[in-house]
Amino acid sequence: MRPLILVTNDDGINAPGIHTLARAMAEIGEVYIVAPDRERSAVSHALTLHRPLRIEEMRDRVYNTNGTPTDCVALAITKILPRKPDLVAAGINRGANLGDDVTYSGTVSAAMEGTLLGVPSFAISLAGDRPFHYDVAVPFAIEVARYILDKNLPDDTLLNVNVPNRQKEALRGIRITTQGKRAYDNAIQELYSPSGEKHFWIGGGKPIWEQGEDMDMQAVLEGYISVTPVHLDLTNYAALEVLKKTWKTTGG
Amino acid sequence: MRPLILVTNDDGINAPGIHTLARAMAEIGEVYIVAPDRERSAVSHALTLHRPLRIEEMRDRVYNTNGTPTDCVALAITKILPRKPDLVAAGINRGANLGDDVTYSGTVSAAMEGTLLGVPSFAISLAGDRPFHYDVAVPFAIEVARYILDKNLPDDTLLNVNVPNRQKEALRGIRITTQGKRAYDNAIQELYSPSGEKHFWIGGGKPIWEQGEDMDMQAVLEGYISVTPVHLDLTNYAALEVLKKTWKTTGG
Repeated sequence: MRPLILVTNDDGINAPGIHTLARAMAEIGEVYIVAPDRERSAVSHALTLHRPLRIEEMRDRVYNTNGTPTDCVALAITKILPRKPDLVAAGINRGANLGDDVTYSGTVSAAMEGTLLGVPSFAISLAGDRPFHYDVAVPFAIEVARYILDKNLPDDTLLNVNVPNRQKEALRGIRITTQGKRAYDNAIQELYSPSGEKHFWIGGGKPIWEQGEDMDMQAVLEGYISVTPVHLDLTNYAALEVLKKTWKTTGG
Repeated sequence: MRPLILVTNDDGINAPGIHTLARAMAEIGEVYIVAPDRERSAVSHALTLHRPLRIEEMRDRVYNTNGTPTDCVALAITKILPRKPDLVAAGINRGANLGDDVTYSGTVSAAMEGTLLGVPSFAISLAGDRPFHYDVAVPFAIEVARYILDKNLPDDTLLNVNVPNRQKEALRGIRITTQGKRAYDNAIQELYSPSGEKHFWIGGGKPIWEQGEDMDMQAVLEGYISVTPVHLDLTNYAALEVLKKTWKTTGG
């Protein structure tokens, strides 16, 4: 039996990246697409609890929902797919998901939800600005998917893949990386409505990244495809020991 | 100078828990409240990028915004507070934030945003069902805040605190814990609109938790206040080595 692969994203069902990813995954398995009906970037791992959700079948094995990427994965796995999938592939995202930004990313969160539901998952993003060369990411999406289906992933761990948005010839291969760290980035613009009310708009800053050979951002800057294993156990085990020593806890 | 403390939540500016937390923090510092104008539970670490945000000053040092908890912390630290705060306190949440649920939680995400902006932060939640005894959490909120202001926190680490929703006499003290793990929980209800269209509503399941002496959920069940150090570096370092060994990466 061919692997069953769920493809989703946070740019919405009409974004070109998801259809490129679906075509790539179709080379190795049977593909279902379940994605938000509109762009849902930076919604992070949001779940919709306050209203009912709708699933629309657009054509065979292609669905949209009015929920978040996380909702889409939960609905797909529990309500749409004929069986538990072998893989969740999220992307190809329009723009990078590097460093601390993984905590905001709808694409990475879709892969988180797959992982939480027991399905090996990866997120794949094109790091750079328009125009986006989605086709460049195809062989790497296939390589990552084959690796996961062949070797599986450690518990509670997904792969966060970022492909530099360059011509194929300028890509230097895959590098396994750590999650980088963004330095402070004061990216909130102030503006006024037509009636003179002050507003704030988040975005538009130029983040500064900490340097580090192993870091995701560094790999991308050097023309490598960055593959970061992202762990859903967020416990800081080193801090655990420090806390236990320095905090006079009652009982426990 | 007294410590400057930002208090926020995801239940919204009108939730009782935030005002209890603000009163607790006022015992040790100067408090600003900046919170969403309505409930924003399960929005996770969502940032609002697609529309401008509004800040409303309700009274001295009390503000609401039409953004998410993450937006509130970013706006507070960069636009509202007179200087960088010494502490971000998020809560007191109406309901637990344990195990994998930290990745969905707006309350924990507010503490994440504080941490990312370089401010030591904690999230505090009441674990249990209505009626909520917010006052029970007060001494522990103060103890946690004092610990952080006195000893600081490791890099990129916040504290996720869960207080069992019990009478004071039934609480057994603080335990330092790891993030627990929820077993699979098929919690999506199917329902029909008045016009007969099928919908899905997430929630209402009874999750099953993996057992483990050190785990957050276990501590709460036994009547302890659970304090988990949550790390924002999600890299799975053990997996990093495995990947490097088992993946024939090009270059890198």
